[in-house]
Amino acid sequence: MSDPASKYFDPSITDRERAIFEAAIALAMIYHKFTGIPISSDKRLISSLEETIRLSSATQPFKESTDVKIKTGILKKKKNPYDYTELSGRNIDVKVVARYGGAEATARLRFIREISYPLMYIEKVKSRHNVKG
Amino acid sequence: MSDPASKYFDPSITDRERAIFEAAIALAMIYHKFTGIPISSDKRLISSLEETIRLSSATQPFKESTDVKIKTGILKKKKNPYDYTELSGRNIDVKVVARYGGAEATARLRFIREISYPLMYIEKVKSRHNVKG
Amino acid sequence: MSDPASKYFDPSITDRERAIFEAAIALAMIYHKFTGIPISSDKRLISSLEETIRLSSATQPFKESTDVKIKTGILKKKKNPYDYTELSGRNIDVKVVARYGGAEATARLRFIREISYPLMYIEKVKSRHNVKG
Amino acid sequence: MSDPASKYFDPSITDRERAIFEAAIALAMIYHKFTGIPISSDKRLISSLEETIRLSSATQPFKESTDVKIKTGILKKKKNPYDYTELSGRNIDVKVVARYGGAEATARLRFIREISYPLMYIEKVKSRHNVKG
Repeated sequence: MSDPASKYFDPSITDRERAIFEAAIALAMIYHKFTGIPISSDKRLISSLEETIRLSSATQPFKESTDVKIKTGILKKKKNPYDYTELSGRNIDVKVVARYGGAEATARLRFIREISYPLMYIEKVKSRHNVKG
Repeated sequence: MSDPASKYFDPSITDRERAIFEAAIALAMIYHKFTGIPISSDKRLISSLEETIRLSSATQPFKESTDVKIKTGILKKKKNPYDYTELSGRNIDVKVVARYGGAEATARLRFIREISYPLMYIEKVKSRHNVKG
Repeated sequence: MSDPASKYFDPSITDRERAIFEAAIALAMIYHKFTGIPISSDKRLISSLEETIRLSSATQPFKESTDVKIKTGILKKKKNPYDYTELSGRNIDVKVVARYGGAEATARLRFIREISYPLMYIEKVKSRHNVKG
Repeated sequence: MSDPASKYFDPSITDRERAIFEAAIALAMIYHKFTGIPISSDKRLISSLEETIRLSSATQPFKESTDVKIKTGILKKKKNPYDYTELSGRNIDVKVVARYGGAEATARLRFIREISYPLMYIEKVKSRHNVKG
């Protein structure tokens, strides 16, 4: 599919930069849209939520793939009606690959203990060519 | 399971009123947490999102059952990378049953054309007894 | 203003029950829509967020008043670029009064240490008359 | 402030690419965290929400400035209790400047009628030097 929006971008933007831009949007969408959702140790809930995030991310422009892992190990059995948790930056791990023209950016969201922060970062960028797409 | 939080409530609250309170919280959680999620006509996405909402609602206190129907009829095939939609008050229909003690409240969220509004309302309340639980 | 939606409700619902229903919706809207917003110890941010929540809640049906207190005491000064927090069930305290016909329900959202949970509960309900409105 | 997270990034990432990455995160945070908030034509609500978004964005890493304009022109006076709207991709316009090392990326979120889409795009990127920071 062609990109009817490319004309709105600064013309100096390369495919590599655009792929990075799209990967960042995906991670921030996932974090800000899905964290806070009530979850428990119910395996069906965890796997349907992972699938929902994966396929929801895929609807957005230029997303090549999205891997989502919700770490259920830290969730415990319900002892009273108020005993459940929420999806948060501490229990989600996401890898998104965005492709634009000849470039592919792999970005990651995961909790980094050192800075006590759910960091979004670029793991790898590949370009088949360095010319603009 | 007993309710360690009942002591915080106004003691004049009946089971019937508490069931209504809990059903309202469920509908508003679903509306305000899940609308805005990017969706397409992909049937796997729609059904995993319905399942996620249903099971996420079930984690919360005093929810008996949750039915979710996302109306995919209005979603069309992707023509360009920007062609997708979001879960909204116009394409979701939810029925929640909350039970507290001897009372059961059935509440509904659906778009009402007359007022152009995703209305939350109480369809039915049943009490086995009218005494407090 | 009259209520064009009252006909959708179970006819056995009293004004008191409707006020409780509307108060619950307000608390759950505030919790599920606003938690997760990035915040810092910046007093202008905290007070504009409190004002935003208060006035946003007021736009919704049958809300009489909303008090919001964000507990900034627990927020510390920024030491690195990743040092900030989010609005959460641990740092927000909300009181909503909903009125319907002759009844008024006061509901509260605050973190209860005993159950380690941001509890929504009904503090008080008042009815001028016990008949239906 | 130094950046304790830079070591997690692909070492080939330039300052210019990092600034683009951070600007994209800001726009997607604003869109996915704030849309859906109930709003009306109340000028105090609109301006406190604009201020909240602006200052909330500023708490996040490497944000230089954020301009937010909510287009209240399309909001009408309340005729019944259900007559209000929500912040959405159609009524928000955001410009974010992110700076990293010697580079500055200006990104924009606004509704583009041609594609009927709230587009996020890069308006301009400036680098004082093209070497890595």
